[in-house]
Amino acid sequence: MSSVFDSQTAVTSLDDHGHTYAATLDAGWMVGGGLNGGYLLAVIGNALKASLPGKPDPLSVSAYYLSASTEGPAEVDVRVLREGGSVATAAADLRQGDDTRITVLATYGDLDRQADDVRTTAEPFDLPPVEQCVPNTMAPESLRKVAPLMGRFEMLFHPAHVGWTVGEPNNSGELSAWFRLEDGRDPDPIELLLVVDALPPVMFTYGQLGWAPTLELTVHVRAKPAPGWLRVRHATRNIAGGMFEEDCEVWDAAGRLVAQSRQLARVPR
Amino acid sequence: MSSVFDSQTAVTSLDDHGHTYAATLDAGWMVGGGLNGGYLLAVIGNALKASLPGKPDPLSVSAYYLSASTEGPAEVDVRVLREGGSVATAAADLRQGDDTRITVLATYGDLDRQADDVRTTAEPFDLPPVEQCVPNTMAPESLRKVAPLMGRFEMLFHPAHVGWTVGEPNNSGELSAWFRLEDGRDPDPIELLLVVDALPPVMFTYGQLGWAPTLELTVHVRAKPAPGWLRVRHATRNIAGGMFEEDCEVWDAAGRLVAQSRQLARVPR
Repeated sequence: MSSVFDSQTAVTSLDDHGHTYAATLDAGWMVGGGLNGGYLLAVIGNALKASLPGKPDPLSVSAYYLSASTEGPAEVDVRVLREGGSVATAAADLRQGDDTRITVLATYGDLDRQADDVRTTAEPFDLPPVEQCVPNTMAPESLRKVAPLMGRFEMLFHPAHVGWTVGEPNNSGELSAWFRLEDGRDPDPIELLLVVDALPPVMFTYGQLGWAPTLELTVHVRAKPAPGWLRVRHATRNIAGGMFEEDCEVWDAAGRLVAQSRQLARVPR
Repeated sequence: MSSVFDSQTAVTSLDDHGHTYAATLDAGWMVGGGLNGGYLLAVIGNALKASLPGKPDPLSVSAYYLSASTEGPAEVDVRVLREGGSVATAAADLRQGDDTRITVLATYGDLDRQADDVRTTAEPFDLPPVEQCVPNTMAPESLRKVAPLMGRFEMLFHPAHVGWTVGEPNNSGELSAWFRLEDGRDPDPIELLLVVDALPPVMFTYGQLGWAPTLELTVHVRAKPAPGWLRVRHATRNIAGGMFEEDCEVWDAAGRLVAQSRQLARVPR
């Protein structure tokens, strides 16, 4: 079965050196007026993967968002900065015409070759069983129209975290949900680049429902996720100076902490 | 009074465009066989500051460490990627000869112009008064010889976090200390780039006292620090696959959370 996520994040090499890639940004990943930042990161992640043979997996990706991307053609330029050894580091720019949309630094490696020690002391956060959570399909038609992104995956929210959807924000700074792609694709490291920026901004729990533009997002992919549902948690502890940090954790169905990210974003006006 | 930190992180413009800078990396910031990563980040931070008029303060800096720096001359190349509006984004490379040591993306702005809301929900961590903490000057002469860095600042450790110094690690993954520069300089945003990578690696609390090379470090500077002591906390929750994340918080003397960082590093062998 072909995956919508795979086909809509695919890149095609444009040169012999294999360091410039074409992509077609799909309107199905729009939210509000713009394309989802995690979707764009997965597109860039695929270009980096294609440029770094033997290093298929993102270990760390840092993205700075410069201007809003639009649906349609885009190019990703990759510059390999360091190869050799077990990891490689590269820079990548997502461009549309003369405008750079996102600039990225990333280190890739092979997660199958990493040491097999797991001494994680973090505990998975509390999330009721799937059937007790609130599905994104319950969102009103008016919202789903401006956020076609919501049709790309199933998100089942912690029932205590969605008061904001009915005008009763809990001011917790915490938002968690079960997550899987609507096309049934099993999660992998590239998908995790999407997942860490797929939930609504955590400022929604304060009733601030506007756009929260990301300045910077860094994600560490720490293991290949097991097949099945992912559980995702966003949290903020430092809303100040018109900005907030949003930490994200992704745990897989086997109970492993597979990705951690933090972004710095502007508080919605 | 001239500051050792200021003079040893200073950069000099090498061209008319002001985007290539010379620096002299000082051996006083060595620890083990290499120069401290936070010191190098402050050098790069000064080059970025010089390249971005009207945006004097780092808001977010992401550094990828490619090869070990050595004392002596270095150059910092800055490429401005986006200016205009309240923030500017640039890339910077620290080079020695043909080798790139560190590659950086950063967004700068003016912390004096940020909104004055502070809705931080994070609580400052527990740290006993300065006079009850364990000063780094108590380190044995043999250690201070291989870590001249320790002479550059005062660190006063939480007494419950330093069992590793006497062969009794507490396996907590947490290390906190009071911090100030030995030259009495009051903290500022550039100094915070040093502070988030100045403490020993948090793996020391597990008795793993070797070098923990950083792959990636991102720091968000959230406010100008008030004069006086800083309190710094390192913590890890996900030691796995031969790597660990190290989160750092820096609180100022006025009780504000002024910087947050996370790095991905290799577990010492």
